[in-house]
Amino acid sequence: MISFESDYTEGCIPEILTALNKTNTEQTTGYGLDPHCDNARKLIRKACNAENADVQFLVGGTQANTTVIAAVLKPYQGVLTAVSGHINVHETGAIEATGHKCLALPTDDGKISAKQIENAILAHRNDETYEHIVEPGMIYISWPTETGTLYSKKELTAISRVARKYHVPLFVDGARMGYGLAARNNDLTLADFAKLTDVFYIGGTKVGALFGEAVVIPNKNIAANFRYMIKQKGGMLAKGRLLGIQFEELFKNDRYFKISQNAMEYAEKIADALQEKGYEFRYAPETNQLFPIMTMAKITELRKKFAFHVMEPLDEDHAVIRFVTSWLTKKENVDKLIKAL
Amino acid sequence: MISFESDYTEGCIPEILTALNKTNTEQTTGYGLDPHCDNARKLIRKACNAENADVQFLVGGTQANTTVIAAVLKPYQGVLTAVSGHINVHETGAIEATGHKCLALPTDDGKISAKQIENAILAHRNDETYEHIVEPGMIYISWPTETGTLYSKKELTAISRVARKYHVPLFVDGARMGYGLAARNNDLTLADFAKLTDVFYIGGTKVGALFGEAVVIPNKNIAANFRYMIKQKGGMLAKGRLLGIQFEELFKNDRYFKISQNAMEYAEKIADALQEKGYEFRYAPETNQLFPIMTMAKITELRKKFAFHVMEPLDEDHAVIRFVTSWLTKKENVDKLIKAL
Amino acid sequence: MISFESDYTEGCIPEILTALNKTNTEQTTGYGLDPHCDNARKLIRKACNAENADVQFLVGGTQANTTVIAAVLKPYQGVLTAVSGHINVHETGAIEATGHKCLALPTDDGKISAKQIENAILAHRNDETYEHIVEPGMIYISWPTETGTLYSKKELTAISRVARKYHVPLFVDGARMGYGLAARNNDLTLADFAKLTDVFYIGGTKVGALFGEAVVIPNKNIAANFRYMIKQKGGMLAKGRLLGIQFEELFKNDRYFKISQNAMEYAEKIADALQEKGYEFRYAPETNQLFPIMTMAKITELRKKFAFHVMEPLDEDHAVIRFVTSWLTKKENVDKLIKAL
Amino acid sequence: MISFESDYTEGCIPEILTALNKTNTEQTTGYGLDPHCDNARKLIRKACNAENADVQFLVGGTQANTTVIAAVLKPYQGVLTAVSGHINVHETGAIEATGHKCLALPTDDGKISAKQIENAILAHRNDETYEHIVEPGMIYISWPTETGTLYSKKELTAISRVARKYHVPLFVDGARMGYGLAARNNDLTLADFAKLTDVFYIGGTKVGALFGEAVVIPNKNIAANFRYMIKQKGGMLAKGRLLGIQFEELFKNDRYFKISQNAMEYAEKIADALQEKGYEFRYAPETNQLFPIMTMAKITELRKKFAFHVMEPLDEDHAVIRFVTSWLTKKENVDKLIKAL
Repeated sequence: MISFESDYTEGCIPEILTALNKTNTEQTTGYGLDPHCDNARKLIRKACNAENADVQFLVGGTQANTTVIAAVLKPYQGVLTAVSGHINVHETGAIEATGHKCLALPTDDGKISAKQIENAILAHRNDETYEHIVEPGMIYISWPTETGTLYSKKELTAISRVARKYHVPLFVDGARMGYGLAARNNDLTLADFAKLTDVFYIGGTKVGALFGEAVVIPNKNIAANFRYMIKQKGGMLAKGRLLGIQFEELFKNDRYFKISQNAMEYAEKIADALQEKGYEFRYAPETNQLFPIMTMAKITELRKKFAFHVMEPLDEDHAVIRFVTSWLTKKENVDKLIKAL
Repeated sequence: MISFESDYTEGCIPEILTALNKTNTEQTTGYGLDPHCDNARKLIRKACNAENADVQFLVGGTQANTTVIAAVLKPYQGVLTAVSGHINVHETGAIEATGHKCLALPTDDGKISAKQIENAILAHRNDETYEHIVEPGMIYISWPTETGTLYSKKELTAISRVARKYHVPLFVDGARMGYGLAARNNDLTLADFAKLTDVFYIGGTKVGALFGEAVVIPNKNIAANFRYMIKQKGGMLAKGRLLGIQFEELFKNDRYFKISQNAMEYAEKIADALQEKGYEFRYAPETNQLFPIMTMAKITELRKKFAFHVMEPLDEDHAVIRFVTSWLTKKENVDKLIKAL
Repeated sequence: MISFESDYTEGCIPEILTALNKTNTEQTTGYGLDPHCDNARKLIRKACNAENADVQFLVGGTQANTTVIAAVLKPYQGVLTAVSGHINVHETGAIEATGHKCLALPTDDGKISAKQIENAILAHRNDETYEHIVEPGMIYISWPTETGTLYSKKELTAISRVARKYHVPLFVDGARMGYGLAARNNDLTLADFAKLTDVFYIGGTKVGALFGEAVVIPNKNIAANFRYMIKQKGGMLAKGRLLGIQFEELFKNDRYFKISQNAMEYAEKIADALQEKGYEFRYAPETNQLFPIMTMAKITELRKKFAFHVMEPLDEDHAVIRFVTSWLTKKENVDKLIKAL
Repeated sequence: MISFESDYTEGCIPEILTALNKTNTEQTTGYGLDPHCDNARKLIRKACNAENADVQFLVGGTQANTTVIAAVLKPYQGVLTAVSGHINVHETGAIEATGHKCLALPTDDGKISAKQIENAILAHRNDETYEHIVEPGMIYISWPTETGTLYSKKELTAISRVARKYHVPLFVDGARMGYGLAARNNDLTLADFAKLTDVFYIGGTKVGALFGEAVVIPNKNIAANFRYMIKQKGGMLAKGRLLGIQFEELFKNDRYFKISQNAMEYAEKIADALQEKGYEFRYAPETNQLFPIMTMAKITELRKKFAFHVMEPLDEDHAVIRFVTSWLTKKENVDKLIKAL
């Protein structure tokens, strides 16, 4: 059985294992205050062209989202998000458990527009009963989105402008950021994110690490006292250097970008094959998650050899499925899949 | 510089690194539902003689404490703990952040007694204004405690009886459980904990793993729906197998017990030397954390060669310090320390 | 200026003021444990034909909603509600502030159907990633709804069946219950609510009292320990008898029903006049809140003499407005309004 | 039976009932935005000599404490309080339910000192592991305290200096403020509180009103957006004018001060009689709550004619009891009590 189920089915790039072995008996301070974390911070700041940004390392995505959002919002504020946003759908109410409402905006493709965001902020401000309504206190977007789509530089710039105009911080969930950066049509860089957002994270879990997300915080107000929140929310790893070591390896020699290209090369190959063979897509194929529509017969046939998610039934005969490639996807498996399509 | 600062300054036992290497390209399901986690569950259930207990794996101690306690308490309940309990002192209010009060009981040695606990429960029940007072809804103890002491089997049994008499679940934080089990005067086993408590955890982070705590849940009511809480509190590791693999290695061939003996052998050697040389202890030296009292001059002298924590000044000339040994403590370093004392 | 703005613009029925005067120097125990509260409980139980239901008195609607919902939900559960539900829109995130998500269902008329509720419950249960998704743990409906509409006995019975089939408690927000009960097309009674729901409340604030909501709890599990929650959420009035005295007066001689009829008589008169004059309604005129559509010119004209809310612009020339009648609405003012339409 | 149980056993001053009658059919806006609230604000600002302070009205003490503290603290902060503080003991964990720890300081008389507070703040700042420890983010004191004692102007000024030195806001719970102001040895005024604190409240519930606490907020940062918190915490009374009307009456013609003198006159008379007859006090008799020590025989005898609380057993033969006088305490009842002592 060949799996295209997700981008977290395997371990990590071999360089990380080598580094873990090499550093195993070093004695270091805990909680992310060790030299490996410091070095990783430097590498990331450099990659982001953001000398003054704070960088903190967390273990996973839900933890990162919850810690960041809870650190920023005041008790009567909520976070604007696409209705399909990971925080709104797939985190068992983690945001609400910290006391805050997800203010969900409608979307067809996983993205929300600067206009939608501005309207939501104004709708609150202009309502006579505004004190009775949750105030939008942060903007959350995923890049790539949960449905594999990407905001362009123009779109992100427009959102950033709204964020700054109304003093509502912008947060980008980059759990799959590597794949977005390596995508054919992408025109954004890490430096753009550092310039346009208040806080964002660079996903390791899904892009070559065993685990770990690097939270980059250009906004000084959010950086202050952020480590209290990490500890309180259970995210302060005792052997914090494990995160430092992994991000050191990922950001040496542009590895993070190179391994992401592997995923995108094969995703694009599969997408091209699907298009050629006449399959339609539920969402535009932009990154390493592909959402073609298939007949149930075809799905049953493919499932004999391949593991993948069936996302959503469309009618009695058709469903949306998902193929995911990763930094470790192999050519031979991609070839087999294309042949079987 | 030789460090006796903590038991999480190094990496992990080599068998874990070997296993991570060996399994690195395996494709598995995420979130702790993979074969490695299942196998680790079996090994732990067997070690605890608790066939029906649920076992779940979390990344760290604060996360484990918060998730367990938040899963059990009703909104108007709090958790009984020694005033020195980790949850009451060193987790940045993580329990309160889930809405619950730490009901702190006084202690001199890090332990609380069955009688204290019973009195606290009765004080609430007998108060006319009980509806205005937080109800004790769980008992939290650490074993070993934060000050290195141990409850005996008799003491734990007495607490367990109170817990059952009043239907207030008993939870044991076993972040350093291995060292307690290997201690000279210990008369408790994992099977005892499985029999006497409602939920407890076996610490990996401080006992040979890179990270990870195995939460054992003999009480079915707590086990039900516990995984929702893990996800909500940010503790559900995407590549959950990393926890399974580590606990597989720790519980193969009684490794968990053997590596703990290393720490205890050296802790006892240092404790004996300290006693011989006439040092007094702030807390009885029972496990791998030792709390001798030293003059400031001696502390200054020792700090030239050794790293350790100064815990608490006693007067202008004396302070309590802490030496910690671990599964990786080396004979030569212990000999050097004893020589320097 | 004559106000049709809301049903809480004035004080209370004169009998309440008389009773407050008469009882002013009585000495009673606090916190709702006095003879007046006990007597009001009896009157309400009788009116609900629910001898065994618990009855507790709270000061206002947001407090009642928050206290009830927080008392029932487990930490990983949320509450199903129409997207237009008061808890989802107009309570500044009070439910989320207690840690729980509002699971909003679409609606056109303020109501949700048994089928929608069942589908939401099943969608969660049937999802492979259900542990990553908030579990529906309670059903919240308003009766009358925020848009003035009513569930019929048939509709409520169907919802109740789903609630019991899936063990998801049903909660009815009855802030304006009196007006619903007095409505022309209503076929439900207080006894029906006591039979079909797990908990509901009978609004006093908007129906003749100075303040106060009577929470009726037929479900024993919810009643147990509910008073702890009242205290914690700040709802336990020191001079609790003030609530007892008010509900004693409201439920003597069927006053609650009679005063509601006044509102409904005039609401129906205005609704009939609107219809006759060709105005369309945004929501069907069923209770004491009417939502006709008017031209901006007409709105401007009416506002010279009458106070009312403009709810929602429809296009450049039209908007939805709201007229509200109450237990104190006067015939002469209704006649003036009808004349002006 | 004559009650000295508490100061909330009766209704309110007759002027409030008269005003409720007189205003009953007025039509006003809801939520505290009406002319009565505005007028009461003016009267209170004047009484406090604090033209620029914000004034908001809440229904009760637990609500006031919770709303104020939750509005001020950041998620990782807690509130410093005497261990005997109302928020720490008698509010069913309301503060913790908003996510914050009560940082309890020891006390013998219900008071905490500027030195204790400063030490607690410094202990946190100077701890190497400060990020693992809840930060003191607010100072809560009660005036009078729960045990009837008073801070002097010198003591309050010292606390205020610490608060400002370390930027930790100072909050005074004045549920019984009237009685403190009227106490024989008091040297503080409302103007002092407005000058020395960041936020405090003037209790109505226990001092002449049916219910209601006037929160005075000299600190602009706390005032901003405070009304969102009131709504979220369920404290925004629909017919907010009821609070305005009550505080209008209390602050007309210095009534609040005059009615408090009644309580203090009788409290001091009883205290003097107790002292004369040789009774000892558990806490110094400074305000309207008296805590004499009595034999069980005497308690049994007194209870035949008088209602009062037995607070705390001292030994088999003695207990601390509490007598409370109020704005409505009558001379004849005081004379009877003194005769019976």
